[in-house]
Amino acid sequence: MTAPVTSGPVGAGGPGLLGRFEEPARAARPRLTPDEARVIEQELAEWRRLEGRYAPATPLGELAAVAAAVPERLYRDSAKVLLRMHEIAGSGNHQSCLSSLSLVRACFDLGLVPGPGERAGQRDGAGPSAGSAELVVGRGHIAPSFYAERYVRGTFPFTPLATLHRDGLTGVVHRDWGFRNTMRYSLGVGLAQAVSLAWDLRRQGLRRKVVCLAGDGELHEGITFECLRFAHEAGLDNLVLVVDSNGKGIEPLRAPVSREYLSHYLGQAAETDGLDTEAVAKSLRVMLDGPGGGALLCATRKEGHSFKLPPAPDAPPPRPSFATTAGPLLAGLQKDTGRRLAVFTGDMAARFGLPNAVPYENTGLAETLSLGLTLSLPEETVKVVATDAMYYMDSLGMLTEATTSTRHLLVLAGRSWGAWGGATNSLNLLDQITGTRAYEPVTAAEFRSCVRRLLADPATAHVLSMVDARFTAPGEDCAGDVDAAVWLGGAPDAADLDCCVITFGYAGVLVAQANRDGGLGVPHLHCAALRPELDPALVERLRRCRALLSVEYNGVSGGFGEGLRSRHLLPLTPHGVRSDIRNCVHDTQLSRHGMTPRALAERLRALREDGAAG
Amino acid sequence: MTAPVTSGPVGAGGPGLLGRFEEPARAARPRLTPDEARVIEQELAEWRRLEGRYAPATPLGELAAVAAAVPERLYRDSAKVLLRMHEIAGSGNHQSCLSSLSLVRACFDLGLVPGPGERAGQRDGAGPSAGSAELVVGRGHIAPSFYAERYVRGTFPFTPLATLHRDGLTGVVHRDWGFRNTMRYSLGVGLAQAVSLAWDLRRQGLRRKVVCLAGDGELHEGITFECLRFAHEAGLDNLVLVVDSNGKGIEPLRAPVSREYLSHYLGQAAETDGLDTEAVAKSLRVMLDGPGGGALLCATRKEGHSFKLPPAPDAPPPRPSFATTAGPLLAGLQKDTGRRLAVFTGDMAARFGLPNAVPYENTGLAETLSLGLTLSLPEETVKVVATDAMYYMDSLGMLTEATTSTRHLLVLAGRSWGAWGGATNSLNLLDQITGTRAYEPVTAAEFRSCVRRLLADPATAHVLSMVDARFTAPGEDCAGDVDAAVWLGGAPDAADLDCCVITFGYAGVLVAQANRDGGLGVPHLHCAALRPELDPALVERLRRCRALLSVEYNGVSGGFGEGLRSRHLLPLTPHGVRSDIRNCVHDTQLSRHGMTPRALAERLRALREDGAAG
Repeated sequence: MTAPVTSGPVGAGGPGLLGRFEEPARAARPRLTPDEARVIEQELAEWRRLEGRYAPATPLGELAAVAAAVPERLYRDSAKVLLRMHEIAGSGNHQSCLSSLSLVRACFDLGLVPGPGERAGQRDGAGPSAGSAELVVGRGHIAPSFYAERYVRGTFPFTPLATLHRDGLTGVVHRDWGFRNTMRYSLGVGLAQAVSLAWDLRRQGLRRKVVCLAGDGELHEGITFECLRFAHEAGLDNLVLVVDSNGKGIEPLRAPVSREYLSHYLGQAAETDGLDTEAVAKSLRVMLDGPGGGALLCATRKEGHSFKLPPAPDAPPPRPSFATTAGPLLAGLQKDTGRRLAVFTGDMAARFGLPNAVPYENTGLAETLSLGLTLSLPEETVKVVATDAMYYMDSLGMLTEATTSTRHLLVLAGRSWGAWGGATNSLNLLDQITGTRAYEPVTAAEFRSCVRRLLADPATAHVLSMVDARFTAPGEDCAGDVDAAVWLGGAPDAADLDCCVITFGYAGVLVAQANRDGGLGVPHLHCAALRPELDPALVERLRRCRALLSVEYNGVSGGFGEGLRSRHLLPLTPHGVRSDIRNCVHDTQLSRHGMTPRALAERLRALREDGAAG
Repeated sequence: MTAPVTSGPVGAGGPGLLGRFEEPARAARPRLTPDEARVIEQELAEWRRLEGRYAPATPLGELAAVAAAVPERLYRDSAKVLLRMHEIAGSGNHQSCLSSLSLVRACFDLGLVPGPGERAGQRDGAGPSAGSAELVVGRGHIAPSFYAERYVRGTFPFTPLATLHRDGLTGVVHRDWGFRNTMRYSLGVGLAQAVSLAWDLRRQGLRRKVVCLAGDGELHEGITFECLRFAHEAGLDNLVLVVDSNGKGIEPLRAPVSREYLSHYLGQAAETDGLDTEAVAKSLRVMLDGPGGGALLCATRKEGHSFKLPPAPDAPPPRPSFATTAGPLLAGLQKDTGRRLAVFTGDMAARFGLPNAVPYENTGLAETLSLGLTLSLPEETVKVVATDAMYYMDSLGMLTEATTSTRHLLVLAGRSWGAWGGATNSLNLLDQITGTRAYEPVTAAEFRSCVRRLLADPATAHVLSMVDARFTAPGEDCAGDVDAAVWLGGAPDAADLDCCVITFGYAGVLVAQANRDGGLGVPHLHCAALRPELDPALVERLRRCRALLSVEYNGVSGGFGEGLRSRHLLPLTPHGVRSDIRNCVHDTQLSRHGMTPRALAERLRALREDGAAG
């Protein structure tokens, strides 16, 4: 069992569920209707009254008790609830949630969703009826559809809904919130969880089936084939795959998911209207009641991918994220050097600003393939692969093939923990791959300098960590020598430094702001390289510092600061990300990892005044 | 282009090809027939005569010149040549080579194999005939079949054949030796290389097709599905997949490769007798001359997996490798604790000694799946996944899912660089995964201690590096506390140590032998943990050493020694594996990485006498 998402045990000491939701719900007030605000206050009052009276077995049990105490329903249609949740949140995967909504409703109607008092996976019935099947939700981001549906069915209060993505309710499927499985970030993992469960039920001699709710995009992932092939060959005829077939991953699919392929490995494949709850329920019931497994392809619709509030009429256009500048920068490179580019991305063209900038090949949600496609291209072609840093984690073998057998390989590794799921260690792992060097540019000049370095050293694959954050580029950068360190805010005069902070990539932007805003004047070295090559005289100077701090918005373990300690035996204290990922938006992420300029200013002040780096 | 496999440029200074093959060919003498020995001496003489006279464009061109100078053929049948190569080598993938031999012959007959003077991939013909197709060999270990066939066709001398796996000729497909592609270790990579090439040919507007020669086992890998799905959806109708369908990966397949599946994604699938060269050539020609791509399933036969010489009648049975003791040790655990085990392996049951020891599920060559199958099992079940350390590298995302969402996860990571392809960094990467600890036990007691540690700390996944080497267990070990360090050969009396060596896992066995054999008496600390927890007093004692060395048979980068430097700022010199993997047997590996007891004794002597750790 994973650690509970509640900050304290339900009903026991600590903030509990009420503590978790109260503050973010109140913070949402400016975006609430008067009725919503009123109901939330009622719910909070009832919640306080209920608290301590009894200890429900599950978080959902507690929520159901609150919902029962305030039975008024503001909305009867869960689609409307989903819209309000996303309007209040201002972000999220609204369209994904809508796309699957009829499928989710059908699962409720068939009794596949555990009731509020039930722990998913604790059922022991062995009968063949639909109600005793297990549901594994592979579409990780559609948890809100389940909450919206629970709301209209009267077992979920409104308060948590107003805290989505705002440090209250998370949008990702988690075992603590009524799901059989927990999603993290590997695409296609839901099908693996379902096959694991089907295998175990079979081993226990149990007859119930496993329903896996998956998206058509994620069926591009190689792991899903491994699962289907194994289920077929191992004779697991208790697996029913329900596909939300909306024709989109993040970008449109090249082709619909193959019914023939699914039918071959699952024994049968049926199609149904995925916008019609009754049709889905009927087809699914037939498959659950009949012999064997199968695939149910539900034709649905998805308009966009990420939810965006319409901009205020007089608002200036938002600054682009640094990651989206990659496309125009690559186009500039192509123009300046005349180099042929081959750009591959697993559905992430928009994130890297590729459309209308450079030609690219979308490989779908198949990251190992995007690396594989670089393997046989001409040496002189610059091969660019662009996806989220964490998505490379299931392709590091293939990446090694590419780094050791190709030339001119540029790996763009998107980074935005939380919004994408994140992985604090991913860049450190990428850096460990044979024949690679990792950088995190934060200015256009640094990006171009990294690419120039690649052209000069084509046998080394260059991994560029591309942050999704929107920020003002620092005045100075490492573009002159991307392997070196540069003083931000001016080089200190004194030969002997009292204290110093040395930063990696984006953390340099945050530290510079903290240093500036706080008027702290801590000497600040900025590096674009994860493993910078420091001048020996500089190392000596650093070694003589009274207090030395490194900061990286990156996993400490195996990261920038630890590398400096290991290579140079520098007695610095590494500050960076030490905890596991959390699902929340960028600003909240920063605060959780002690990376807000305010938190950093405190670190710098302590460094300067007390010499306390730790 | 990768670094050439020749130790110096062909025809230029350095040892060149003759230098590469002469010594290992002479070393093979005791295993040669008199005729073979005679021909080799003739070839070497002609080779010396040719050397310096002209510089052939390719290594194969040079070999062809030697073959032309000594035209006598000892064998006319390449199957006989293959047998002799493996008898002389004493190891290798003889059965895999035999299984594909008719397919290889057909490729020669159809003109798909570049001639000795041609650089593969340098063809510029655009005609549709079979001869202008490109061949990508995905079965990485069947390079010997091509050499044997070149030998009987008169363009390859005998000398290199006598050096297979013995530091001369390697058995793995490499671009420098007449192949279009280079194989390293990712299974299924050949198909990715073929699709990459097909994509690039299409982009260039070229009409020629790509033939990919693959095994049925590797089609279990998820990447092969990603490739086929993409080729289909991207309209790449220039891909012809020839499958050596022998019904075996390393172990027998559960089911034959699916003709329906391949036919769906490749447009057509034909079957033929893979033991009949003419039948293969005929079917393949039809597919190459006709429109579109396709799959050709060739029914073949494979008896075993690894080649083993019959043991001498009076030889004692060889000591089992440490890795093969895993099965019996797990059985003991099950017996002692009554724990339910669920064991998954990707075709590597024999390597870990699982058969007749514990029940296990063979997932085929689908490592991500073997991790995926752990995801939904009961908490108390001990989940064991067993495969080669390097094969996890394409599954680290899925491993993170498992380490963060399951309990009682035991990851066995086989290690034997060279024989399996290896990856010097793999254990260091596994150690970086959220929620893991890595160990390298070298005694049964250490293995059991690691498992006990897992049972006491079930939320942490325990990665056990399992070495394939055969060795005598050291007298002392870390079983008492697997996280600590223990003195091997006795604790030193003096509080102040002059010098000290600290080792990780299997390197401790090698260093102990070096220390003992050389009578060196260097104080020696042995650790089973990649990140040991050292007593602060011990750290202080080590810090005061005049000279400090760490030794690990593991990648230095991000490894044991660097970790000690980083965590404790210990001024030690890490000795370990710094170069990339090489394809050679264990003993040769050790010598390449400075890990033979003799090389280690030199390091220890220098440490003691000169204080030179580096």
